[in-house]
This record gives sequence, structure tokens and C-alpha cells, in this order.
Amino acid sequence: MSTKKFLLQESDIPKAWYNIVADMKNKPMPMLDPQTRKPMTEEDLHPLFSKAAANQEMNTTDAWIDIPDEVRELYKIWRPTPLVRAYGLEKALDTPAHIYFKNESVSPIGSHKLNSAIPQAYYCKQEGVSNITTETGAGQWGAALSYAAKAFGLELAVYMVKVSYHQKPYRRSIMQTFGAQVIASPSMSTKAGRKILTNNPNYQGSLGTAISEAVELATQTPNCKYTLGSVMNHVMLHQTVIGIEAEKQMEMAGEYPDVVIGCFGGGSNFSGITFPFLRHKLKDGKEIRVVAAEPASCPKLTRGQFQYDFGDEAGYTPLLPMYTLGHNFSPANIHAGGLRYHGAGSIVSQLQKDKLMSAVDIEQLEAFEAATLFARVEGIIPAPESAHAIAAAIKEAKEAKEEGKKRVILFNLSGHGLIDMAAYDQYLSGDLVNYAVTDEEVAKNLSECDKI
Amino acid sequence: MSTKKFLLQESDIPKAWYNIVADMKNKPMPMLDPQTRKPMTEEDLHPLFSKAAANQEMNTTDAWIDIPDEVRELYKIWRPTPLVRAYGLEKALDTPAHIYFKNESVSPIGSHKLNSAIPQAYYCKQEGVSNITTETGAGQWGAALSYAAKAFGLELAVYMVKVSYHQKPYRRSIMQTFGAQVIASPSMSTKAGRKILTNNPNYQGSLGTAISEAVELATQTPNCKYTLGSVMNHVMLHQTVIGIEAEKQMEMAGEYPDVVIGCFGGGSNFSGITFPFLRHKLKDGKEIRVVAAEPASCPKLTRGQFQYDFGDEAGYTPLLPMYTLGHNFSPANIHAGGLRYHGAGSIVSQLQKDKLMSAVDIEQLEAFEAATLFARVEGIIPAPESAHAIAAAIKEAKEAKEEGKKRVILFNLSGHGLIDMAAYDQYLSGDLVNYAVTDEEVAKNLSECDKI
Repeated sequence: MSTKKFLLQESDIPKAWYNIVADMKNKPMPMLDPQTRKPMTEEDLHPLFSKAAANQEMNTTDAWIDIPDEVRELYKIWRPTPLVRAYGLEKALDTPAHIYFKNESVSPIGSHKLNSAIPQAYYCKQEGVSNITTETGAGQWGAALSYAAKAFGLELAVYMVKVSYHQKPYRRSIMQTFGAQVIASPSMSTKAGRKILTNNPNYQGSLGTAISEAVELATQTPNCKYTLGSVMNHVMLHQTVIGIEAEKQMEMAGEYPDVVIGCFGGGSNFSGITFPFLRHKLKDGKEIRVVAAEPASCPKLTRGQFQYDFGDEAGYTPLLPMYTLGHNFSPANIHAGGLRYHGAGSIVSQLQKDKLMSAVDIEQLEAFEAATLFARVEGIIPAPESAHAIAAAIKEAKEAKEEGKKRVILFNLSGHGLIDMAAYDQYLSGDLVNYAVTDEEVAKNLSECDKI
Repeated sequence: MSTKKFLLQESDIPKAWYNIVADMKNKPMPMLDPQTRKPMTEEDLHPLFSKAAANQEMNTTDAWIDIPDEVRELYKIWRPTPLVRAYGLEKALDTPAHIYFKNESVSPIGSHKLNSAIPQAYYCKQEGVSNITTETGAGQWGAALSYAAKAFGLELAVYMVKVSYHQKPYRRSIMQTFGAQVIASPSMSTKAGRKILTNNPNYQGSLGTAISEAVELATQTPNCKYTLGSVMNHVMLHQTVIGIEAEKQMEMAGEYPDVVIGCFGGGSNFSGITFPFLRHKLKDGKEIRVVAAEPASCPKLTRGQFQYDFGDEAGYTPLLPMYTLGHNFSPANIHAGGLRYHGAGSIVSQLQKDKLMSAVDIEQLEAFEAATLFARVEGIIPAPESAHAIAAAIKEAKEAKEEGKKRVILFNLSGHGLIDMAAYDQYLSGDLVNYAVTDEEVAKNLSECDKI
């Protein structure tokens, strides 16, 4: 098993987040008001988000945005996280590639999601907000926000995608142990939920639906804001602590990655690990590839279309420029619940459009095969989401072997899978299946989507 | 939430374990052969244990025993672990006490058990062993050993106490993901298991029974050794890395504990955190209290009797001098499965007899109340076992408040509870109950015990 860790000190926790938009030649297209079709302003976001988050969302000029001291203090609970040279995996693959991973699974809730939960809760508290709402897929984001809400004394209601609510009861319990209210989505507690349940009583939910419900509750509750764990620019911003630390650690290792990989749901951990590296490509033309690893069952980057679409199922959110499968897309019940989202955030979508990054799709069985190998040679059981990044890293390492050339691979281990063991059980007993979506299915779904 | 961590460097990982026996005036009484009643020799242990473990088990003279480089290399995967000042808990209790905890939950399998799993597997590998067996209660030890067995390429069979096999399926899956065979105990695969199932088909198992099965399998499998996660001297020895690190870290904090607390099953994490501190009491008469926190449902130290007894249900093991409830004791199905053991290891039993330590018993509901408070103010969901140490620390902090005096409290957070969320669910929904054992019940059980 691997033993080489590259460790930073508390003083190395970044003092500023990296805002990639400032360095992009082609900025992401603006969010649009669905009624007027006009670009949204920062003020338009104030009813839903904290003012600080709205400001960060719209900031296209400052490449570095200060991290508040109170946020850095809480980051110290688990940051800086280790960078690990995966000798065990290299040996198992018999590859000339050097494989590194950033271990974000060491956070107290087991994933990278706390990196944004803490500042979002902090800003709400600063601005006198008392209640927050959110949605969660696999429960990683909900667990993180429950922790952050408790830390700052905020009341929290979480809409959890129904399939995960039942598949991953332990994550629900974690949220409840931290004092959050958890509601399976779709629920009867919102208009959006009731409409969906009326049309399809057995619908197992999606992130898009849960967002509709959380947004609706936030707009109808006094002194309440909505928060979210991915897709939007300010979330990507907060996650860049991952890549900023990793860059320093790669320097300690005396190498620079040829390729940086993150699994891809809405873009949060992917952006976090890759944007600080991509910076040098944008600014200095440095040769580096960044790769998003998405599930074949929810392939917005590899098979979706770039267009304006809603961020949620019911159409409550602004229109976002995104690679999308259609906001009505109903993803298969794969275990990587955190990747079951129909669209990519607008920064990532622009980068993909400009060919500054690429994407691969990974089948569920390939992800679990990679995860099980990784567990046995590196000693960490990865989250099913993170398993997609591992599978993509293994693809790269195998290519390096075929070429007979060294390749330096860095991926983000976004979380551990200790609460996803039911999925491993199914994999080990041969009960898991693949769910690839075809181009035809995507085209059909987009054509059936409500006209935007 | 708490943010003050005291962090060591990799170079601070101890180079030697502390063998408290060398410093004890009254040595633990010897293990006896149950047939001959004669003290066992080191060689007598060779059929069951690695030679190195047998040697460490019997070592009464060397206070420090070198940690092999290969073991230290694997310790580096997660060690040194943080010491944390629990400001959040202090504030919630409004106490003048200073509360510190050593966070052993950061290991890749989530508990302190790896500290001994790694050297035990290492020594077996060194000596050419191919197969190992063990038992596990809640699954923490089994998970740790599965990891260590995989790291050294050993085949492993784990007998898991049946109640935990069903209560904690995720820990079973973790072991299987690492490639171990897991058998619910009592099972039909051994004579000991068959006998118990014949008499009581619904028996939910105990550590004592699982030990019988694992020992039986080890003795009947070629090139196979038995390993265990607690009770025996060499296990206590390996766990002292916890306290050795903690002592350095308390120095960094500029304080010395008035009291050191560990939860108590067979003694492994308790010994690990306390023995290095107890050393100064034994050698220099330093004023320090060490407290074992055991469940009221399995109270060997607070209500048991000091006598020779078997380590297992079937009577396969040597006779050990221990505080015991009787090797036939059938503990209630509390969620702290790791504490469901009838006896205390012989070192601890001698220390308790000599009044060099003390013990408190904690009810199940008090443990979960403490655990939930701790989660909400410190951000870490503790294992139900560790919750007993937290409850004992809270008792101490409340006493300090009543006295209006500062008290420095250190406890060991032996593991996280992310895989025990079903227990939290039951607690939060009011379905958990207490199971205190009375003196009369203990006396009755001891009188019904097979005559030794």
C-alpha cells in the first residue's frame, strides 16, 4: 500500500480562492432571467443567495478573492489535506505513469463539500440570515452543510433525492445527528414536488427536482436563503483550495502533472482540483490536460448539448449556459448519486466549448472495478463518485504503459465510500449493472424538454 | 466548533512501543495452561501466534520495544494523529475544565485498531505465515486487520459477532471489499459454533464465542495463525503509539492531563492512551488519574471479579488473570459492539487490583447523549464505543464546574461512527434503551460458569 504523503502546514492553507473567470478570454455567458431573457444582475440574486455569494458569482475581474479568517479557522479542522503518491496503484497497473491523488476524504464528513459549505453558511450568518435550505444527491453536500449550519447556528432544511434517501440512510442520519431537517424529494411539501408526484407517484427524484423544492422553500420562508453544493461559479471558487494546495504539494514531489482529473456531477470537485492548474494554461499556455470523468448514465459533457437551460426540474432558476441533457432528464439510479445532474456549470461549459478541457464517460461497473482495486492497493475505500476519477486515471496510466512513456497523473479523491458500502455489496455480489445513455436518447430528451 | 489542533510531523511517529509491564512493581500474574495449571511459556504460544507476538506477550523486562521500519512506514499513512482542544465541548458544558481528545478516527478504516493490525500482520508475513484468522465485534478490528492482511498479502478469515454482522453490514462490506472472508459467529463452520447453535439456535454471538471459532480455525488450518485486537499484552503494547504521541502534543499545548480516559472493551484503546502517562505515576509517583469507561451492560471492571478465566466462550484459550463477568457472560445487544467482552486484559486487571486506575460504567443512553452533543459541537460523529469515553469526560468536566476549578481532561476518540448511523437513528427516534447489569446478575453468572 502507498505510504508517500506530501503534507503541508496549517499556514499553507490558501488565503485566497482562485477565480478562473478573471483569466478566461471567453467569459462564461451570463445567466438570463427566464421571463425577460435579460442578463441577471448581482442584485437579482439577492432574494435567493447571500450578498457575498451573489457578488462572487458575478465577479469576472478579480483572479484572487480573500478567504475570511473565520472560514480559514474552520478549514483548519481538516485542511490542508494530504497529497499521496499512489505507489500501490502504479505497481498494480505495472505502469510507467506516476499517479498522485489529493485526498479530500479526510474531512470530518468525508468529502470535499465542506470547502464551500463553510463559507456559504458563514456569509449567511454574517448577513443575519437564520434559515437556509439546500438539496443533496448522495448526501455528501447535505452532510457538509449540516455541519456548517450547526457550526454557525443556522437552521437547515435539506431536500434529499429520494433514491439516495433510501439507498444511503446513513447520510440522512448524519444530517439529522447534526440537527438538520431532511426531506425525501420529490415531497408533498412544495408545489414543485406535488406536481411531479401527481404526474409520476413513483419518481425516485433527481438533483434537478430537489433544487426546485429547496428554492421554493427558501423563497417562501422568512429570513431564509438557498445554498447549493455545485454548478454555480461561487461554489467552484470555494473549491479551488483543493488545487491551490495540490499545486504546492506537486512542487514538493518535484513533478508537474501532465493531466489533472476530477469526477464530474455539476463541477465542484472537478473545478476545485483543476482550475488552479488550468490557470497556467490560460495565462502562459502551459501544456496540461484537464479531464472530467462523468458517468455514462449522465453524460452531459460527452453527449449533451451547449445551450441555455434551467438549473432545476421545475424551471425556478435563472437560465444558465450549460452543456445539458435537458432539465427534465431523469438519470438512472446509479450509486454515484452526486453525479446524477443534467447539466454542467457555466464556467466548465465555456471551458469545454473552448476545448480547454476534455471529458470521458465511465460505466458504473468500470467505476466499481477501479474503486475496489484502489481500496485493495491504497487502503482507502472511495466514494462511488470519486471512483469515476480513479477509473479515468487508470485509463491514462494504461495508455502510458502502452506508449511505454512516463505520464504524471493527478486526480482528486473527492470523498470516501464508507457510507456507500451497500453499493460495494451489490458490486461484489454481481448485482450492479451499467446504464449508458445514447446520443439518440439525449436528442429525444432535449427535444421533449419544455421550450426555453 | 473546535479548531485548535496540535499536529506532529511524520518524524514524531514513535520509534518504540512502551511496554508498561517492565515498570510495574506487581507484574500481571502469568497465563496458565488450563490442563496442567502451569504458567505458559513463550513457546507454548507459538502454535497460535507469530513468534514475535509471543515474545512481546511475555516480555516483562524491556520498557521500550522497537517498532519495525516497515510498520512505521504504514503508520505514516495516517499517523501522527491530531490532538484537539475541544473548545466547542467546553463551551457547551460551560466548564472551567480544559478538554483534549486524541483523534484516532482519522485512520483509513476509522479507528485505532490499525495500530496493532499492522504489526501483527507484518510479523506473520515475516515468519512465512500465509493465512490468519480473527474475531471482530463491531467490525472495527476486523476492518483494520482486513486492511493489514491485504497490505502484506495474507489470506484472512474473520468471525464477526452475529448481532454486529446484521447491525453493521457496512463494516462487513468493508472487510469483503479488502478481500477478507467474513463469517457470522456463532457459525456451523467450527465445533465451538455448532455446540452453541445446537444449545441456543438464536444466540446472537459474543466476542468470547467468536474468539473460540477463530482459534479453532487457526489450529486446524495449515500455516495459519490467530490474531486478536485486544485483551493480550502485545496488543496493548502496539496501541501505546497513541499515548506516546499524545504526551508530546500535550507538551505542545503547555498542559499536563489531570485525568486520561479511554473507553473499555478488552483494553486496547484504553491502554494505548493511558499507559504512556501512567508510566510517570509508576516510575516517579506523578499525580495522574486514568479512567476506563465501560458500558453498564458489560461492567467487568466495576462489577466483575478478579480471578483466572478463559478468554473465550468455549474454553480454548489459556487461563488469564482478569476482572471478569464469567466467560459464559452473554452481553446485551448494545450498539457499542466493541465493548461487549466479558473480561479485562491481565495488565489492566493488575493495575485495577493495585488501584493504579479506576473505572466508571456508562449507560447506553448517556453514551449516545454525549455522542450527539459532541457531534454537534465538535463536528465529528463518534463511534458508540468512543462515546463512552466522551460521556466519562463530560462527567469529569461537570465535576470541575461544580468545584469551580480547572481540570485538564484528555480522552481518546478511538473511532468515528459514520458506519454506526443506524444506532444514531434509533437514538434520535427514542428507540434505544439502557441495559445495566446488577451485582446479583454478575454473581449468579460467575457461579454458573464452568468451574475453572
